[in-house]
Amino acid sequence: MLKMAEPIMHHRHPEFTEILTRVNLNLKYLFQTEQPVLTLTSSGTGGVEATFVNLFSPGDTVIAVNGGKFGERWVKMPKAFGLNAVEIKTHWGKAPTQDQVLDALRLHPDAKAVYLVHSETSTGTATDIKTLAAVIREHSKALVCVDGITAIGAHEFRFDEWGIDACVTGSQKGLMIPPGLAFVALSQRAIQAMETAKLPRFYFDLRKALKSHGANDTPWTPAITLVIGVDAALQMIREEGIENVWRRHERLATALREGIRGLGLKLFSDSPSFAVTPVWLPEGVDWKVFNKTLKGKYGITIAGGQDDYAGKIFRISHLGYYDELDMTTMLSALEMTLSGCGYEFELGSGLRAAQAYLTGSA
Amino acid sequence: MLKMAEPIMHHRHPEFTEILTRVNLNLKYLFQTEQPVLTLTSSGTGGVEATFVNLFSPGDTVIAVNGGKFGERWVKMPKAFGLNAVEIKTHWGKAPTQDQVLDALRLHPDAKAVYLVHSETSTGTATDIKTLAAVIREHSKALVCVDGITAIGAHEFRFDEWGIDACVTGSQKGLMIPPGLAFVALSQRAIQAMETAKLPRFYFDLRKALKSHGANDTPWTPAITLVIGVDAALQMIREEGIENVWRRHERLATALREGIRGLGLKLFSDSPSFAVTPVWLPEGVDWKVFNKTLKGKYGITIAGGQDDYAGKIFRISHLGYYDELDMTTMLSALEMTLSGCGYEFELGSGLRAAQAYLTGSA
Repeated sequence: MLKMAEPIMHHRHPEFTEILTRVNLNLKYLFQTEQPVLTLTSSGTGGVEATFVNLFSPGDTVIAVNGGKFGERWVKMPKAFGLNAVEIKTHWGKAPTQDQVLDALRLHPDAKAVYLVHSETSTGTATDIKTLAAVIREHSKALVCVDGITAIGAHEFRFDEWGIDACVTGSQKGLMIPPGLAFVALSQRAIQAMETAKLPRFYFDLRKALKSHGANDTPWTPAITLVIGVDAALQMIREEGIENVWRRHERLATALREGIRGLGLKLFSDSPSFAVTPVWLPEGVDWKVFNKTLKGKYGITIAGGQDDYAGKIFRISHLGYYDELDMTTMLSALEMTLSGCGYEFELGSGLRAAQAYLTGSA
Repeated sequence: MLKMAEPIMHHRHPEFTEILTRVNLNLKYLFQTEQPVLTLTSSGTGGVEATFVNLFSPGDTVIAVNGGKFGERWVKMPKAFGLNAVEIKTHWGKAPTQDQVLDALRLHPDAKAVYLVHSETSTGTATDIKTLAAVIREHSKALVCVDGITAIGAHEFRFDEWGIDACVTGSQKGLMIPPGLAFVALSQRAIQAMETAKLPRFYFDLRKALKSHGANDTPWTPAITLVIGVDAALQMIREEGIENVWRRHERLATALREGIRGLGLKLFSDSPSFAVTPVWLPEGVDWKVFNKTLKGKYGITIAGGQDDYAGKIFRISHLGYYDELDMTTMLSALEMTLSGCGYEFELGSGLRAAQAYLTGSA
């Protein structure tokens, strides 16, 4: 944060070029790719839009998995651009299956792409990208496009090895800095598709971004301070080692889930994400009181459920610079809050379960 | 800067809503409007794109003034979206005239809009928006769209009183914070045009942004820290008073120009901007040596010329939190650098001229 508070520099002076050069290099490491990873000034949604408007032409068919608020957005978005969006709808909390993807590809053999959400934030549900990407690659020529916004830096992800064609992430998730930047990795197949794609684009024209990327520049003024921040974050990730970062997220998510179960609470997702854990609010506990206590008394920000699940579930994030004690701190606040909300359980039972997992004595 | 370095908050928690509510209010003051001013996470270029894709349909004619690098961009951009872009080309350093605008409107009576650049950064040239807006309003139904990216907060600008329909600015200019946000003010006519406009849009869909704006929210995750920064900047502007901010910019720009003339140097623009002053590099002075000395020895970042004027002019910015001593500091560094570059003049002559203006003894 303090790096970002230093006096601003101009984005076309050598001091910034040096930073962007290092960022471009370390983003490849983050995505596990030799391909270019482009930096855009926008939210993650803007990054996903960049893939749609650069890879397709009006009328093209794209398949998108909708298993939550973000998947839903990736169905609405291509429609707004005149694409034929085919929806694979999965129940919230369930990941798409191979059969669902294969069925969609059989029904739409002309599909130009399949969009998958690696970690669906609204439901805390992870998709097995490696397996589905292999299935798509084996049975079709469709591009494999991944919303990696809350997954990159939390879940194992190997852009090149898994045969991904486009993957987007945002700055405020696994990269641990404030929102405002999106990052887009593109395969050679995607870069070729860009050349013939006819959807109009300018700000999000990735041909321009790719050309500038070659010179460690950006076509438009970037969010300079955020690039400076992501430079520091990527160096932290590089130092810890990406495999260790993935393992840490899996370990913390597992510990938290053990704690949740230890409290007698029910987990929401069948295929839990390592980035966020949604939990059913126990019968009789009022969401507003619960949330207000956590925030007001303990200073902890959690998220509620969306749409049908508003007031019914709550979501705990553990994405980025978290460690084991953050999980026990969270569980401690959760226990004391639930106790105050009239939920009956043995105080310490969640903490005990999490600690048993973390110390290997489970 | 330090405000932006504080621990991040969630963009849909009350603490952030409070900030965005104040920002929305103070942006109206900045633009001198009762109309909504929308906050987008993008560079200024993204903000201008938002006006094109929300106000027009494929095939619509728009007139744009091209008198420099940015005006040129506002001709290329509508073309990329299938609009019929009519260019009013002015010589670099010259502002568009009423006759030029009237001629274009006569030749293209179907024009849906005229795009004007209030302060063209590449040439340091200001356009008389008040007069041209009145002329356009009198002779046509075209929307008056203004690139106010480097002008808002430096030049007098009255959105409502002058009858402007769309105006865009960026966070890193008169608003004094890092780049990453764009702000778009829309008139009622523009809001109506939005309803029938057919260009596809999603991330930059201002109908969505307008709806969220009503609830002091944004449709997508905004660049939270930058919004926090702009909140502080707008409060500074409010405290100083917008008229005083405009007067300060005019006064500093004038002082600098007096200093430049005092040194025997030639100004580039016929219609000087209060945001940036371009100056002809004197014969025999090498741009690279000159720039390197200013930066390396005195820590001062200036900009060079673009396109045909690369190596021939240099540009001094005085936009944002500058005061009188910043101008004399700049002139002092300029004098010592020019002296080292072999330019012959009386040391102190620029400073003397600037000080004479500032002290009213000119």
